[in-house]
Amino acid sequence: MAKNAFYAQSGGVTAVINSSACGVIETARKHGDKIGKVYAGRNGIIGALTEDLIDTSLESAEDIAALRYTPSGAFGSCRFKLKSLEKNKREYERLIEVFKAHDIGYFFYNGGGDSADTCYKVSQLSEQMGYPIQAIHVPKTVDNDLPVTDNCPGFGSVAKYIAISTREASFDVRSMSKTSTKIFVLEVMGRHAGWIAAAGALAADKDNDIPVVVLFPEIKFDREKFMAKVKANVEKYDYCTIVVSEGAQYEDGRFLAEQGTRDDFGHAQLGGAAPVVAGMIREDLDLKFHWGVADYMQRAARHIASKTDVDQAYAMGQAAVEMALDGKNSIMPAIIRTSNDPYTWEVGSGELKDIANVEKMMPEDYISKCGFSITDACREYLVPLIQGEDYPPYENGMPKYVTLKNEGIPQKLEKFEI
Amino acid sequence: MAKNAFYAQSGGVTAVINSSACGVIETARKHGDKIGKVYAGRNGIIGALTEDLIDTSLESAEDIAALRYTPSGAFGSCRFKLKSLEKNKREYERLIEVFKAHDIGYFFYNGGGDSADTCYKVSQLSEQMGYPIQAIHVPKTVDNDLPVTDNCPGFGSVAKYIAISTREASFDVRSMSKTSTKIFVLEVMGRHAGWIAAAGALAADKDNDIPVVVLFPEIKFDREKFMAKVKANVEKYDYCTIVVSEGAQYEDGRFLAEQGTRDDFGHAQLGGAAPVVAGMIREDLDLKFHWGVADYMQRAARHIASKTDVDQAYAMGQAAVEMALDGKNSIMPAIIRTSNDPYTWEVGSGELKDIANVEKMMPEDYISKCGFSITDACREYLVPLIQGEDYPPYENGMPKYVTLKNEGIPQKLEKFEI
Repeated sequence: MAKNAFYAQSGGVTAVINSSACGVIETARKHGDKIGKVYAGRNGIIGALTEDLIDTSLESAEDIAALRYTPSGAFGSCRFKLKSLEKNKREYERLIEVFKAHDIGYFFYNGGGDSADTCYKVSQLSEQMGYPIQAIHVPKTVDNDLPVTDNCPGFGSVAKYIAISTREASFDVRSMSKTSTKIFVLEVMGRHAGWIAAAGALAADKDNDIPVVVLFPEIKFDREKFMAKVKANVEKYDYCTIVVSEGAQYEDGRFLAEQGTRDDFGHAQLGGAAPVVAGMIREDLDLKFHWGVADYMQRAARHIASKTDVDQAYAMGQAAVEMALDGKNSIMPAIIRTSNDPYTWEVGSGELKDIANVEKMMPEDYISKCGFSITDACREYLVPLIQGEDYPPYENGMPKYVTLKNEGIPQKLEKFEI
Repeated sequence: MAKNAFYAQSGGVTAVINSSACGVIETARKHGDKIGKVYAGRNGIIGALTEDLIDTSLESAEDIAALRYTPSGAFGSCRFKLKSLEKNKREYERLIEVFKAHDIGYFFYNGGGDSADTCYKVSQLSEQMGYPIQAIHVPKTVDNDLPVTDNCPGFGSVAKYIAISTREASFDVRSMSKTSTKIFVLEVMGRHAGWIAAAGALAADKDNDIPVVVLFPEIKFDREKFMAKVKANVEKYDYCTIVVSEGAQYEDGRFLAEQGTRDDFGHAQLGGAAPVVAGMIREDLDLKFHWGVADYMQRAARHIASKTDVDQAYAMGQAAVEMALDGKNSIMPAIIRTSNDPYTWEVGSGELKDIANVEKMMPEDYISKCGFSITDACREYLVPLIQGEDYPPYENGMPKYVTLKNEGIPQKLEKFEI
């Protein structure tokens, strides 16, 4: 008898997380003998806890296919991490109640490190609480910081957007530098790892001699050294582009720009490193500057997503379902790079116990000796991930993204307060 | 005997100003009997004053064609406004010396309102100083504030970028709102006129019910009214997107975010309205927010330029040369809209005396009564301008923009200090 599946999106959404959703749902629909309905959690795991389940079988094949080119989280996401079984047994018991009530035997959770932890905890329910469930994590994070997988779906598209935006803005400031702006500062995401900031360095290549100075979270900010680098670039090129990670920090670990607020996981909410850097440029070098903050635009920019990324996101969703059908539990499909040039990859997997709460940092040899750019090894790693364009369809000059009906199923249980 | 032409780019550059350059140069090349070489001013009019002229005839047809899809100003731009003939006769005499030395009979200046003023002054040299020159202004400005022309090349592409980015970021915040971000603030350009901010409202349409609140420079900022609007949206939608113009200002005319610096024309240098608005949201509503600043990215985003805009920019360059060949002086080609639906337009023209230093504001009936959105009339005006995509070619995942050789011609005159 076919069991139903639960699918949910977690954490910060991306330009391609819906492509994974598309992969999950389309693949599940092909296996109606083993998987009944796919219920999506409205707003991630919260949808499971509150029995707020979306019946994706009510969505047309066309609308599900449109998820492949629609950014954001179509079912709503959440920032919510399950506590340990010891600390909050009530939540796990509730999950089991909901799964039982709706005959759910498959649990697909699409997210980053915190979500892998949640998924791992759910995967233990069989053993620890006797409820038979197969929990598979579908990797997603623009931060590219999950272990085991060569890269994370979501990252390649942000990298492509940042590389292109940095090149375009650099062309702009180069045009203006004679009498006006000489410095452009672009702030990008990446709280602890400099993967996204590194992508800014791709603006320059053998045909594009562009001075890009990157401020990585991995390298403690040294104002004097930084100003010397910028000054040297301005002397040589008459302009300089700076890509600063939101996670760039001083020697003592303070972020260049804390806003003083924290998210539900206790992470400091960042934003504002660019104006801080720009202000320093004014103080120390007295050069005219402009600054931009890419914020949500960078991770939502489906209009210029990387085709490689879109394909891989879909493949991870598809593989998750196939692994479930294969009887697997507590696992995550992963992208395994088999060659750099030409770039080839295949689907592998990792155990959730090895993935949950592990943060993959950039290898040290990816940052150049000066601390402000990337090495050839880093470039070889990054370039394949931004390959190919995968334009969405347009109507009236605007991308035709889908908004699903998202109809909930009737609730059978009592209310649950989170 | 064929006279040479001078072409230069002025003011803030755009995603399509090089498409106009392409139109000028390709059209001139077709009329070798009347136009000799096209010399480009390195960094705008400064190139003419300092006799720093680029020989565009040394660029291949392929590279000139690539200008059509390359953002920024290929020859460098400048912020430099000629004083009046009475105030600085020396500069005009110098221009004539340079024109004479290089047999220049045509002057094409590609810019906005300040540049139209410079072009107008040059166009008077025939009459006032006896040097025969035909000066034609090629319209360009993301601010869309030139009179006579229905719209300005450069604006349509920014509008498209902002409309798309606002839609994408809105999808993102909608996904996050349950447990995290409920407010996204996007800061856009437009110092005095709200054209670009208005484009943010295009994120919503009949198929996309997105709550977008626009802060126009035309409407004095009323914090209480604004907060009430945002609060109502959050109550209804659980999230709200805010598009704030860099020119948004208080009742007393102060900008929400002055950086305290001014450009060479005395205009206050802006930037930072988004964090100011975000800070107010925190104070008054205590909602979690994110904010972005599109800055140069918006005007350099050739990767998602409007095809209509690219075509019109080219057509303006082409028309400028044709008008010159037709014996015209002190004129600007213009875009004349002949129908809204289907959108049709043709090339018209205006006299520089009616254009220089005239700023076209948004019609009052383009802003909705509440002051936070656009009317149907505004939508009808804007939508045609963002029609069509015109993707640049890609290589290795990155747009293949051209950087010209930009070889200078030998100087014949003595140095000139500006």
